[in-house]
Amino acid sequence: MPPLQINEVAPRDGLQIEATFVPTAAKIRLIDALSATGLARIEASSFTSPKAIPHLRDAEAVVRGIRRRAGVGITVLVPNVKGAERALACGVDEINLVMSASDSHGLANLRMTPEQSLAQFAGILEVVASQPGGRGVFVNASLSTAFGCPFEGQVPEARVLELVERLLELGIDGVTLCDTTGMANPAQVAALCQAVLARFPEAPFTLHFHDTRGMGLANALAAWQAGITRFDASLGGLGGCPFAPGATGNVCTEDLVHMFEQMGVATGVDLDALLAVSATLPDLVGHATPGQVIKAGKADRRYPMPQRS
Amino acid sequence: MPPLQINEVAPRDGLQIEATFVPTAAKIRLIDALSATGLARIEASSFTSPKAIPHLRDAEAVVRGIRRRAGVGITVLVPNVKGAERALACGVDEINLVMSASDSHGLANLRMTPEQSLAQFAGILEVVASQPGGRGVFVNASLSTAFGCPFEGQVPEARVLELVERLLELGIDGVTLCDTTGMANPAQVAALCQAVLARFPEAPFTLHFHDTRGMGLANALAAWQAGITRFDASLGGLGGCPFAPGATGNVCTEDLVHMFEQMGVATGVDLDALLAVSATLPDLVGHATPGQVIKAGKADRRYPMPQRS
Repeated sequence: MPPLQINEVAPRDGLQIEATFVPTAAKIRLIDALSATGLARIEASSFTSPKAIPHLRDAEAVVRGIRRRAGVGITVLVPNVKGAERALACGVDEINLVMSASDSHGLANLRMTPEQSLAQFAGILEVVASQPGGRGVFVNASLSTAFGCPFEGQVPEARVLELVERLLELGIDGVTLCDTTGMANPAQVAALCQAVLARFPEAPFTLHFHDTRGMGLANALAAWQAGITRFDASLGGLGGCPFAPGATGNVCTEDLVHMFEQMGVATGVDLDALLAVSATLPDLVGHATPGQVIKAGKADRRYPMPQRS
Repeated sequence: MPPLQINEVAPRDGLQIEATFVPTAAKIRLIDALSATGLARIEASSFTSPKAIPHLRDAEAVVRGIRRRAGVGITVLVPNVKGAERALACGVDEINLVMSASDSHGLANLRMTPEQSLAQFAGILEVVASQPGGRGVFVNASLSTAFGCPFEGQVPEARVLELVERLLELGIDGVTLCDTTGMANPAQVAALCQAVLARFPEAPFTLHFHDTRGMGLANALAAWQAGITRFDASLGGLGGCPFAPGATGNVCTEDLVHMFEQMGVATGVDLDALLAVSATLPDLVGHATPGQVIKAGKADRRYPMPQRS
């Protein structure tokens, strides 16, 4: 079995929606600690306008401040050409572009239809190719609402396949299929993963799940069964679903790693080290995190026999 | 695909560990409401000594007070011959006996080794057969720690298969394989389910999962893929793991039903009705419940487009 590659998104996808700004030095400490656990990639920040996402206004300082480690790719979210230029100037390994598979989510979240996003991506790819060092940077595209849109409902599989094809034709290096609001179910995940892998066998696909309706790990299992080996996940399950107060957000990295390691599927991640980093999150964000293994311990945890009278 | 049969365990497995006693009339209202949702079975109470489980001291009144509905089996937990006699006197459809697959969990939880439990079950089966109406009662055995013991660790699959064989030889009608403390992983679940179904193709097996480490639904998916169609689940995810404070307990019924219905697997359950019952739980038990769908809504929930400036 090929080992999994986990892309840790908490520093970007998690911290951006927290109530409080996490200081730059604390972000750097978090990412440096994550880098040491064996994660394949870390989404370190977002090169968005500081007005749009004030909590990530320190993107440059974070990316320039972290210790780079061989084998750990540093990726950042990039919303436009300007963001791409800023990211490349910091020497990232990967940039991650975001578009929606559905018109209404694209308009609501990005003020762009999928067509407009594709046109914008073409411009970003030109800039990346023209920059010094740009050609060595992996350009990923995250396709939001690939498993359903909270405004429109189902997004036809044929539409997702068409958008993936157009992304790859543009020159995008890899595509992340995102279950943005936790609508996916394992049967749907199996079908879409089988379809993209059959049609684009050379492209690296990443799956991004939310646990909004409790199906995060079941969906990851279904994707892995279909042949997917790259997953986004968020330490402690940080991140959320703005439409579902109280529901958990991104699938929790340590719970995902724990499940696959228990199954005998290598993740390359030192789970104990990862749990130690996760244990620092409540102090950082000011609340408990929704992960389960951090509360229960790993499945191989042993307890003393209770003393009975 | 055959429809699933869901056995709702919240009235027994959930309420027994709550901090407060739920009044008998409220228990009856809960079970009557659950009966109307299309669940296949409901574990209504436990005929244990009132000293052992004070919260279920009203087992007779509950079972006698509920409205019986065609197609909804009423099952109760029975710890010994006396409990079996009490249960049969109330006219239950099924009794559920409990034993552990591991010596130390059996001694800690029941003060009995697996061998002692098997001997006791033989006595209970004799009593059931000798009672008026007893022959029509389904006798199920729940095998705790079938996927691992919190004191001993791994329980060999061969040992579980041996105990299942001996239960069926005794005359037990069905066996529930219980992941008592949430140690199971999907690969292990697939392997054990395939093994029991291959070796005992005629026996009705039920799977009982805990979400202690976030794998509850992933394990249910793996069991279903292996051919299992009967599941225990607990409304709202009530119930717990005494060893893991803060971790969720039993797999949540509405989340399980939601996942399978979304996959196109019939459960026979009216999910909207079930969610309405789940929404009454916080008042009943005095705290929020860990279910996800109750917070997020079903995957087909639609939201209005946000108004942007």
